[in-house]
Amino acid sequence: MANNNKVQIIPLGGLGEIGKNMTVFRYGDDIILIDAGLMFPEDDMLGIDLVIPDFTYLVENKEKVRGIFLTHGHEDHIGALPYVLKQLDVPVYGTALTLGILKGRLEENGVSCNDMHVVRPGDKVEVGSFCLDFIRVNHSIPDAVAIAINTPIGVIIHTGDFKIDHTPVDGEVTQFNKFAEYGDKGVLLLLADSTNAERPGFTPSEKMVGQTFMEEFKGVKGRIIVATFSSNVHRIQQVVDAAVFYKRKIAVMGRSMVNVVNIALEMGYLKAPEGSIIDIEETYNYRADEVVIITTGSQGEPMSALTRMATGDHKKVDILPGDTVIISATPIPGNEKLVSRTIDNLYKLGANVIYEKSNGVHVSGHASQEELKLMHNLVRPTFFMPVHGEFRHLIKHAEIAKSLGMPSENIVIGENGNVIELTPYSFGVTAKIPAGKLLVDGLGVGDVGNIVLRDRRQLSQDGIMIVVVTLEKESCNILSGPDIVSRGFVYVREAEGLMEEAKVKVSDALEQCQMSGNNEWSVIKSAIRDSLGKFLYEKTRRRPMILPIIMEV
Amino acid sequence: MANNNKVQIIPLGGLGEIGKNMTVFRYGDDIILIDAGLMFPEDDMLGIDLVIPDFTYLVENKEKVRGIFLTHGHEDHIGALPYVLKQLDVPVYGTALTLGILKGRLEENGVSCNDMHVVRPGDKVEVGSFCLDFIRVNHSIPDAVAIAINTPIGVIIHTGDFKIDHTPVDGEVTQFNKFAEYGDKGVLLLLADSTNAERPGFTPSEKMVGQTFMEEFKGVKGRIIVATFSSNVHRIQQVVDAAVFYKRKIAVMGRSMVNVVNIALEMGYLKAPEGSIIDIEETYNYRADEVVIITTGSQGEPMSALTRMATGDHKKVDILPGDTVIISATPIPGNEKLVSRTIDNLYKLGANVIYEKSNGVHVSGHASQEELKLMHNLVRPTFFMPVHGEFRHLIKHAEIAKSLGMPSENIVIGENGNVIELTPYSFGVTAKIPAGKLLVDGLGVGDVGNIVLRDRRQLSQDGIMIVVVTLEKESCNILSGPDIVSRGFVYVREAEGLMEEAKVKVSDALEQCQMSGNNEWSVIKSAIRDSLGKFLYEKTRRRPMILPIIMEV
Repeated sequence: MANNNKVQIIPLGGLGEIGKNMTVFRYGDDIILIDAGLMFPEDDMLGIDLVIPDFTYLVENKEKVRGIFLTHGHEDHIGALPYVLKQLDVPVYGTALTLGILKGRLEENGVSCNDMHVVRPGDKVEVGSFCLDFIRVNHSIPDAVAIAINTPIGVIIHTGDFKIDHTPVDGEVTQFNKFAEYGDKGVLLLLADSTNAERPGFTPSEKMVGQTFMEEFKGVKGRIIVATFSSNVHRIQQVVDAAVFYKRKIAVMGRSMVNVVNIALEMGYLKAPEGSIIDIEETYNYRADEVVIITTGSQGEPMSALTRMATGDHKKVDILPGDTVIISATPIPGNEKLVSRTIDNLYKLGANVIYEKSNGVHVSGHASQEELKLMHNLVRPTFFMPVHGEFRHLIKHAEIAKSLGMPSENIVIGENGNVIELTPYSFGVTAKIPAGKLLVDGLGVGDVGNIVLRDRRQLSQDGIMIVVVTLEKESCNILSGPDIVSRGFVYVREAEGLMEEAKVKVSDALEQCQMSGNNEWSVIKSAIRDSLGKFLYEKTRRRPMILPIIMEV
Repeated sequence: MANNNKVQIIPLGGLGEIGKNMTVFRYGDDIILIDAGLMFPEDDMLGIDLVIPDFTYLVENKEKVRGIFLTHGHEDHIGALPYVLKQLDVPVYGTALTLGILKGRLEENGVSCNDMHVVRPGDKVEVGSFCLDFIRVNHSIPDAVAIAINTPIGVIIHTGDFKIDHTPVDGEVTQFNKFAEYGDKGVLLLLADSTNAERPGFTPSEKMVGQTFMEEFKGVKGRIIVATFSSNVHRIQQVVDAAVFYKRKIAVMGRSMVNVVNIALEMGYLKAPEGSIIDIEETYNYRADEVVIITTGSQGEPMSALTRMATGDHKKVDILPGDTVIISATPIPGNEKLVSRTIDNLYKLGANVIYEKSNGVHVSGHASQEELKLMHNLVRPTFFMPVHGEFRHLIKHAEIAKSLGMPSENIVIGENGNVIELTPYSFGVTAKIPAGKLLVDGLGVGDVGNIVLRDRRQLSQDGIMIVVVTLEKESCNILSGPDIVSRGFVYVREAEGLMEEAKVKVSDALEQCQMSGNNEWSVIKSAIRDSLGKFLYEKTRRRPMILPIIMEV
């Protein structure tokens, strides 16, 4: 059987984009999946809550799927699972923290999964023709792993998201030895994180941020409020450590921050001395210089705790003059304005704000160019496919591989939906399957498509104008109307003249239809649309959606 | 008269924001205005084209306005003039290039102004009680000036936008001597650009970008396409110089780029050897390595020339493998995603792209911290007001002034609409006037307000559902309907069941109204809204706008 000497790699998400990572590996009738993430909607996806990969391929091959393997607990790697697991009954493998976070996400979505398996770095899992080996890496969440997939035709290594941190907060350094060992034995294909392929040099150690906290906390008279990503447990650990050192109590704010801190404390990923973490209400029993608040909102998300504090809308925390707010994050592309608005609002309330532009309040969780080079030189793969990045990141990562001596023809820059075939001697795209975006809006998964989005865009730009007229069935005489109702077009009370004129235009159009004896509804409707549309554009240079409705009595 | 020993400064725009700069200076019955800019809409201002300051104050005091003085030709300093000059008949003063650009903008808007006066650095203009003195500064557009306003109570200096460039492209260095001279004589108040108050050190010279062009152009085999701001004439000059050096012809693309290049060539701000600038069609008579294209689109603006090239939608230029595209700009906050999408698209077409992350393809036009310090120490004002910046920039700039020894009480961090009174001995906010945002949508100026925007937001999120029913006048019996039409809510063909159920819900609600004998339209409408809204939310977790319309026969 031809299948016996090849592995198919099918990225369903994560190529040409940062987000919704999901990659299929298939050998014969055995399919495994690495990661199943979500993505936040683009600006033009109006009203959409989140985006997941189209996983039709998995549903159609559901009896072949042997397992889902997770590299770490970030949303862009696990966030699609509540949707995937509704349709697929397969075992899920991940490290303890990853599965701990996943459980919470599944519960929120009312999805159950009784087939979850905790793995540790060094564990090996055999499913179908694959044997998966988990290798510890550093990232901006603890318990992240790369996965070595031992297949009948050779070894494939998927780095997951990684950086190289020689002084990680938990002391658990990337297992260079495992990568080197695989390198020695021979690796057929490497798939590696491209997020920071544009950045020269090395990504600094997470510990650097801890030193910044120690310096910034020193001598501060007021409360200290630190905003960061809730999943960055090591960052939170360093806030806790600095707080304890300076004899401050810690309160935790924001739903996801509270969730993750609880999980991480319970599972031992976060360590805080007895009594050091207190309720926000209790902080008012302490002096301002005895309090640290850890909160969500480092991206200026409109409903997050810090954003509400900054706008004075938080129920439990008012920002006071003398507060110091540290935003320990950089804005994710697209969030720059939200973050800067939050900073401005905090300043207006009298807080001192330490953010991005100050050095050392944040480091990335992804490998920069020199770290990528180290990974390539440890693994020394025959073939290479850059993953986890927008197109230019994949290009830059391919250039790095070439600069290390890999021939161009051994590199595939893939697209979501490519079927990429790997044999011991070749690696290339052979087919394409559907792998688009599945838009989630409320309870609807995939029911909002291009037509609905196009309508939302038009409505958002110039609003809508509805024209209703009641006609007599036989004669087509007008019994009532035309009535005009508009929303989002113009403030009607101040535009009565315009609305009156519009009504006249519609009446004229109706009259002309009747005079010409053309009483087909479609003709009447398009006459209304044309004449009203033209009139409104001339008067206002706007193009509201025009919706004629004919009632018949 | 009390007015005789004070000057009122009233910022109508530009404080707490980057954009729509406009500042009123009043002494007795004499009013002058410095700059009249526009701003691009925030993300939540759906459908709005641009935002200008509410200039009611000027209209109400129109007979007192002696003149409008412009510091330079950027949109955020001149863009509101087409609207202001429709209502105010006052003279406008600016340097030659500033007025050249303004004329184009006025013509586009069908506004005429016959009272424009070209000034040169060193010129003095007396209007009312004021004598204005123009001082050359460097900025990212030629012919930028600061303005020293000599008033009966002392000198006020407004820097406009500036940086300090010791090696400007046109050799016209900032007139340090003039600032120093005023400093020696005594300056009562300084208003200074705060855009880069967060940035330590010095902003590099524009010449640095020219060196980058010389290096990047070297040995390139294909066409070179450079995108930058059309108003940055010095940047364009350096592209021209590099092109001429490497014996390449230059084509200019994009409406605003063509406009500015023509104006700048005509007025002598841009110099290009005879025959070096050619039509885009002519470029096809040359080899790829003999061509440079200068284009708009450095911000990824959806309709701009470069964006259309990148998506393959440009009529005259196809991006070809081997093309080198230099994006000579950094993304303005909010445009990051547009720019990165353009870069990705260019890469996909096979171009090599040189952008932001590469060093030296762009420098800022605003002074960094050390330059601001120099300005303060040259002018040595008694009082200080940071302008042109978001709130945190103003705060940082105030901190810089304090670090140079200025007492806190001599600094005002103002807000748009503040009436700030300056006397020889005091400086402080004394009143507040209306100074909001005037939203421009098509031909409408100010007719789209909060209600319309709120409706657009709701429509953009979940669309609209319209329910129409025809009732008999006397009996209130249903003659026709209820009919339901939706847009932007759900793809109706795939949701027929839902729409049928919705109709039943509406019919039930109508029936209940009739049974309870309550036939008031408002009651019927709110019954429809409530029951349908609840039903749809339960089924979909969406909240479309529900619009009941009752027709009466």
